[in-house]
Amino acid sequence: MINILWGIIACGALAILYAFITSNAVMSADQGNARMQEIASAVREGAQAYLSRQYRTIAIVGVIIFILAWLLLGPLQAFGFLIGAVLSGLTGFIGMNVSVRANVRTAQAATVSLAKGLDIAFKSGAITGMLVAGLALLGVAGYYAFLTVGLGKEPGSRDVVDALVALGFGASLISIFARLGGGIFTKGADVGGDLVGKVEAGIPEDDPRNPATIADNVGDNVGDCAGMAADLFETYAVTVVATMVLAAIFFAGQPNLGVLMLYPLAICAACIVTSIVGTYFVRLGANGSIMGALYRGVIASGVLSIAGLWAATQYVLGGFGDVGTAAGQSITGWNLFLCGLVGLALTGLIVWITEYYTGIGYRPVKSISQASVTGHGTNVIQGLAVSLEACALPTLAIVASIITTYQLGGLFGTAIATTTMLGLAGMIVALDAFGPVTDNAGGIAEMAGLPKEVRRSTDALDAVGNTTKAVTKGYAIGSAGLGALVLFAAYNYDLHHFIEEANKTGATGYQFFKDVQVNFGLENPYVVAGLLLGGLIPFLFGGLAMTAVGRAGGAIVLEVRRQFKAKPGIMKGTEKPDYAAAVDLLTRAAIKEMIIPSLLPVLSPIVLFIVVNAIAGKGAAFSAVGAMLLGVIVTGIFVAISMTSGGGAWDNAKKSFEDGFVDVDGVKHVKGSEAHKASVTGDTVGDPYKDTAGPAVNPAIKITNIVALLLLAVLAHW
Amino acid sequence: MINILWGIIACGALAILYAFITSNAVMSADQGNARMQEIASAVREGAQAYLSRQYRTIAIVGVIIFILAWLLLGPLQAFGFLIGAVLSGLTGFIGMNVSVRANVRTAQAATVSLAKGLDIAFKSGAITGMLVAGLALLGVAGYYAFLTVGLGKEPGSRDVVDALVALGFGASLISIFARLGGGIFTKGADVGGDLVGKVEAGIPEDDPRNPATIADNVGDNVGDCAGMAADLFETYAVTVVATMVLAAIFFAGQPNLGVLMLYPLAICAACIVTSIVGTYFVRLGANGSIMGALYRGVIASGVLSIAGLWAATQYVLGGFGDVGTAAGQSITGWNLFLCGLVGLALTGLIVWITEYYTGIGYRPVKSISQASVTGHGTNVIQGLAVSLEACALPTLAIVASIITTYQLGGLFGTAIATTTMLGLAGMIVALDAFGPVTDNAGGIAEMAGLPKEVRRSTDALDAVGNTTKAVTKGYAIGSAGLGALVLFAAYNYDLHHFIEEANKTGATGYQFFKDVQVNFGLENPYVVAGLLLGGLIPFLFGGLAMTAVGRAGGAIVLEVRRQFKAKPGIMKGTEKPDYAAAVDLLTRAAIKEMIIPSLLPVLSPIVLFIVVNAIAGKGAAFSAVGAMLLGVIVTGIFVAISMTSGGGAWDNAKKSFEDGFVDVDGVKHVKGSEAHKASVTGDTVGDPYKDTAGPAVNPAIKITNIVALLLLAVLAHW
Repeated sequence: MINILWGIIACGALAILYAFITSNAVMSADQGNARMQEIASAVREGAQAYLSRQYRTIAIVGVIIFILAWLLLGPLQAFGFLIGAVLSGLTGFIGMNVSVRANVRTAQAATVSLAKGLDIAFKSGAITGMLVAGLALLGVAGYYAFLTVGLGKEPGSRDVVDALVALGFGASLISIFARLGGGIFTKGADVGGDLVGKVEAGIPEDDPRNPATIADNVGDNVGDCAGMAADLFETYAVTVVATMVLAAIFFAGQPNLGVLMLYPLAICAACIVTSIVGTYFVRLGANGSIMGALYRGVIASGVLSIAGLWAATQYVLGGFGDVGTAAGQSITGWNLFLCGLVGLALTGLIVWITEYYTGIGYRPVKSISQASVTGHGTNVIQGLAVSLEACALPTLAIVASIITTYQLGGLFGTAIATTTMLGLAGMIVALDAFGPVTDNAGGIAEMAGLPKEVRRSTDALDAVGNTTKAVTKGYAIGSAGLGALVLFAAYNYDLHHFIEEANKTGATGYQFFKDVQVNFGLENPYVVAGLLLGGLIPFLFGGLAMTAVGRAGGAIVLEVRRQFKAKPGIMKGTEKPDYAAAVDLLTRAAIKEMIIPSLLPVLSPIVLFIVVNAIAGKGAAFSAVGAMLLGVIVTGIFVAISMTSGGGAWDNAKKSFEDGFVDVDGVKHVKGSEAHKASVTGDTVGDPYKDTAGPAVNPAIKITNIVALLLLAVLAHW
Repeated sequence: MINILWGIIACGALAILYAFITSNAVMSADQGNARMQEIASAVREGAQAYLSRQYRTIAIVGVIIFILAWLLLGPLQAFGFLIGAVLSGLTGFIGMNVSVRANVRTAQAATVSLAKGLDIAFKSGAITGMLVAGLALLGVAGYYAFLTVGLGKEPGSRDVVDALVALGFGASLISIFARLGGGIFTKGADVGGDLVGKVEAGIPEDDPRNPATIADNVGDNVGDCAGMAADLFETYAVTVVATMVLAAIFFAGQPNLGVLMLYPLAICAACIVTSIVGTYFVRLGANGSIMGALYRGVIASGVLSIAGLWAATQYVLGGFGDVGTAAGQSITGWNLFLCGLVGLALTGLIVWITEYYTGIGYRPVKSISQASVTGHGTNVIQGLAVSLEACALPTLAIVASIITTYQLGGLFGTAIATTTMLGLAGMIVALDAFGPVTDNAGGIAEMAGLPKEVRRSTDALDAVGNTTKAVTKGYAIGSAGLGALVLFAAYNYDLHHFIEEANKTGATGYQFFKDVQVNFGLENPYVVAGLLLGGLIPFLFGGLAMTAVGRAGGAIVLEVRRQFKAKPGIMKGTEKPDYAAAVDLLTRAAIKEMIIPSLLPVLSPIVLFIVVNAIAGKGAAFSAVGAMLLGVIVTGIFVAISMTSGGGAWDNAKKSFEDGFVDVDGVKHVKGSEAHKASVTGDTVGDPYKDTAGPAVNPAIKITNIVALLLLAVLAHW
């Protein structure tokens, strides 16, 4: 068993090694001319300045929670929290640092060929992807090894479980701040810069005369790269931890407990290997389809992962026969293998559905382009209609997966499917992190005055990036939907375990839980109250995030106007704008604005528990908090999918005008037409939808769940 | 007891009498000049043509369901369905007929004074309001009297319960079609007419040269008046029926069963009297505040209703002492009286919160006006932010009401609070139905070329109408939120009753339910699946409704363009546009588009039951359907509130520019400015949000619940 654990850790290390080697390859590429390097270094400095300030702010919250965790739970849990937080932050930090160096190299490579540009951009994305998967696996497996092998703790003991949950909490806490802060920064720059640049001054996007243009490029790196990486790190870590916790609960006292706790880690390890192999399949084919090149990588990873899953089942579980009994249901290796396949299938389905709803050339985006012909209002109406409709197929796919996996392997089967789904995170994140690099490369090409063909290459890469960005978000929220039951189950079983222990004759521990009666039935009004209040979180959170972007964007408008007034030479090209001032302003705005919305999901379960406990006692309070966990996912999944898909569709509807959109009457609308202007409005609306509010719902869901689990752990120590 | 029942029926008749007398008063008012009458008759004819066509279409569905109900349930249930459907349709039909006659009289009265205009408009709204409450009470109480006194059935018997539920279903079915069809008609005309008139041709709203202008005014009557009336009729009827069903379940075999079933009817009867008295308090004060005048009526009704509630408790329940035991909890008259007060308080809170989020002069609307200064995109972003945020306070108020009433009187207490809330429907609907009349009056004033001051008066009335329209929708959905638990409880207890009966030794009935094991616990994956699929309904339904409006609006654009081309004299004023063609086109479009979305909530519980039953058996299927009922409310409440409040806020943000909006920098933006144009975009987006998709979510929630109850009744007869 120890050998398996070392093997898993080795796979995590392999991912880091891949990242290191690939990073060297990217760094050795040509950095382009002096002007390009100058722009890139401005972006790099801005991004580093933002991130270090963001991390310093989060560190204050982190230190307080570290101390609280130590006092309320113990040192192992406090260090678990620290590991999760530090690794999550590190993933974002390294990913961002690669991305701000790869952007200029991608721009330079695009001067050679589209294939070269794709190569550099994808490699840099793959570095972030492998860091996410590798560091998350190393963190969880390494700490698990330290606890069980190093300290000799029992695999399924409370100490181990609580320490792992605390690790998940650390990752979640960083990720919600990073997602939201980065999202507010990037979209504040984007919205504000566009308004004052494109609309007021009449200069194109990424024009070097716009003082907000560097901030816009910084935003791509701190939001879409660092924020996204922290988010996916968290999703990965929390899912693996929750699956291990479920294994510890279900198989307690059974001979296979140890291997069943390792099984999810082994699946992730196998999928890291298949993801690495998959990256080598990404190569521009003869048809020149960028999406096709990326899909080849995803499909290769997915197909190879079937073999990886098989190997994990064969070598870790020792075959496809009986492995144990969970909640009265006998589970076989074969059942779990099939559940893993469902996870892979769901990943494929979500990728496919998301591409349908956000890709140029399909009905939804075309309907938005067509609606732009009749004006701003109809563009937005149709975009909202698409965003609402886009929830349907993913939800059906998720529900079908829940039911299938539950039939196959009970709740643990559903957990294994979710873990397998996340196993591919290395590859999926690679697709996503590729987006901001190409977006930046386009900006650098524009600002450095490179030939039009270069911009055309980077634009082609960027359009694909819009879809792949939506794909990752759909994937993250889809896994959250599938994992909802797993997180709730962890809460439910933990709670019942504590109540049982407390009620044993002569028991001295867990006395807070003595005689507590919990009822998760829908007929319980506290359950309904919990569902409604949980359901409110994504809506209120989304509203706060949208307002924050509006405010940050407004601040940028005022700053740019001030610069244009103070330095009249900027527009003539004789004076240089003060890029750093815009970056600095946004840094302060984003960090200020991220605090309150981030605390909403952290504090909600705690406040609900305290209030209901005061009114109706412990049983009602635990029931209400449990229902809140499901309420937040029931609305969160729709809010997140509608926002991310709708936003992607709006963005690509705008892009469809850049090559000229032919409407149903055969009229061609080009860039600069009224229809194009209407599509820009939709894109502006979609920006905070898809890059700030929507994606941050995913960590908000997770953090609510993790806080509830920790609340139980703290009360157990009471 | 029979005397009480006659008294209740007399109160219902009193409402009809009020409507009749007030109607005569309105009809005797001056109809204005020939031009005004000509326009008004065009609107009237269009509205009547639409409504008769809509009812003919619904009648086809209605006849099929009538036959099905007869075959599957029996004649009493089939007639119950018929009564609900006919009365719901009748309410809309009469209300619309009053409204299309009051509009021109309001315009004429506004030439005299604002107070006169308000008087006619409010009276006409009050007619619709009293018809909603009066006919609903007469329908439910009358049929109940027929069943219990006429046929001698036991008050709590299955026959009575099923017949009342079928009555609720009849009302629901009409209302979803009427809400959606009317909503698509009115917003298709509004969006399409604005696009082609204001944007393309550059003519103002309600300009007689626009061929869509009559259709726009027709829409106000068929959507905001007839559709809304059918919706509120349904909410009223379903809530009262559900409360009576709960009384029948909880107090079965107890001496007070009969009076407890009458108690909700008595509360409604008392509130009809207080609402009628309240209407006389609506009078323009010295400060000229229209909202103030309306509020005086609402506050008077609310305060008097406390006395009405006291009287109902004293005379029907026979005092404030013990009345019985429900689910093991002893209930007193005093408890129920307090629950009623909570219902009244919640009504007040929701009115107040909605006014805050949609009224000119408060932060939310001002923030949207301010965001319009920086463009279309920021206007929409801020509007969406407000719409999301607007869910928070109503949800907190609803959850607090659920918990308080449950603590006071169990689930029956919550039901009584919901009933009392709906008791005020006469007054609240009066506020709402006042809106389309003033909107039409403005249109008529514009088209007939009345002096500018008249239009200013009707505009002032109309701005208040935007808020009152949002208030009714918040009120309807708020009652649905409070009533969610009641409807689920009816399902839950019915189901358990059938299972119990089926499992009695020697039982021959209810055999479908034999040995069924139901688990509504959140740990059951079928419950999670039901919650997610139920939660999907409002999103998908909203998406379909938005798309339908877009399509109908697009068709109008093409029709108007065609007319402008075929009759070049229209714009010069030498040729008359073909208004009827636009009305006819929209009639066909709206009726075609309303079918599929309306069937979604009707068929969802049935399909879910069949599918899950096939996969995992009856117990899982019943659990999933039960969870669907709560899922649809958990997301529905947020979708509905966000859409209706957000839409109202957008509309009033646009209105704020008509008097000139002064932004934070002290710059004044007037009608025609860029900021105003941006606010028009938000208004266009808000139109289908607040008048089509958002309000139709309420009947969609109810119908899902009612269909599930009927499904149980049908299976019980299997």
